[in-house]
Amino acid sequence: MTVTDPGPACLFCRVAAGELPVQLVADTPRIIGVLNTLEPFSRGHCVFFPRRHAVSLLEMDEAELREILVTVREVAARTGAENYNLLQNNGSLAGQTVFHAHLHLIPKWSEDEGLVYRREPKHGLDHGEIIERLVITVASEIESGELRDRPSRHDRTTQ
Amino acid sequence: MTVTDPGPACLFCRVAAGELPVQLVADTPRIIGVLNTLEPFSRGHCVFFPRRHAVSLLEMDEAELREILVTVREVAARTGAENYNLLQNNGSLAGQTVFHAHLHLIPKWSEDEGLVYRREPKHGLDHGEIIERLVITVASEIESGELRDRPSRHDRTTQ
Repeated sequence: MTVTDPGPACLFCRVAAGELPVQLVADTPRIIGVLNTLEPFSRGHCVFFPRRHAVSLLEMDEAELREILVTVREVAARTGAENYNLLQNNGSLAGQTVFHAHLHLIPKWSEDEGLVYRREPKHGLDHGEIIERLVITVASEIESGELRDRPSRHDRTTQ
Repeated sequence: MTVTDPGPACLFCRVAAGELPVQLVADTPRIIGVLNTLEPFSRGHCVFFPRRHAVSLLEMDEAELREILVTVREVAARTGAENYNLLQNNGSLAGQTVFHAHLHLIPKWSEDEGLVYRREPKHGLDHGEIIERLVITVASEIESGELRDRPSRHDRTTQ
């Protein structure tokens, strides 16, 4: 999948272009947050997305990824909710319905109001094949916990 | 809620300290990612958290928030999954069981393997009271879509 011209039909591109009336909850250089008044799971359910069209998480650029959670945290604090979920769906099987990457902030006010999901883990899974793609070698410095006290390492990786 | 000494019992502090054997999938200055082998929803289910103890999203600092999604995106790409969910639970009512903030990356391989959640919106919600806390004034520049082409605004807000 590549980033293509979303055309005039992309809901969130239209919001970003100011073509649709929304209840705006966040407005940062790269991120827009709106109250989800169309299909909310709970009162205060908000949706955050990059102004730029990006289909899914993988297509969001680093600046957008760095900005979105800081923005979400600010709005999460304003909801006053002690319980809330963040949810981000990629691909239709995972529940994505608007193909412009977005992240849900869903206050959980009661067992029934908010995100309701199956909490039992799945037993008997064989991670074997995927472990080869995912697991990285453990550096000895991590095992000893030294990393946390080494600012020089931070300097290497962050700009 | 404040950040308090988590004591020796915090599972993710123990992982960060190298006290528990884990399948490490990410290792950045502030963020650790591990394969969820204890209670996975699907093959490749991973969990990401700050090295520093933070109870929930609100207690993660800006540097951690900026780093975590970039890290997650990298691992998401490595899973090879076209469908996947990100989930972050805050508060026990919302499903949080380890009180060290963390974010789940859950590949969705089939209807049954991965995050299973109720997708129907809740009807008849009254956002009235929460709107006052959340909704911000819409600047006219947003309505006209001018923002996207104004790098000077980016300079104002990002470091």
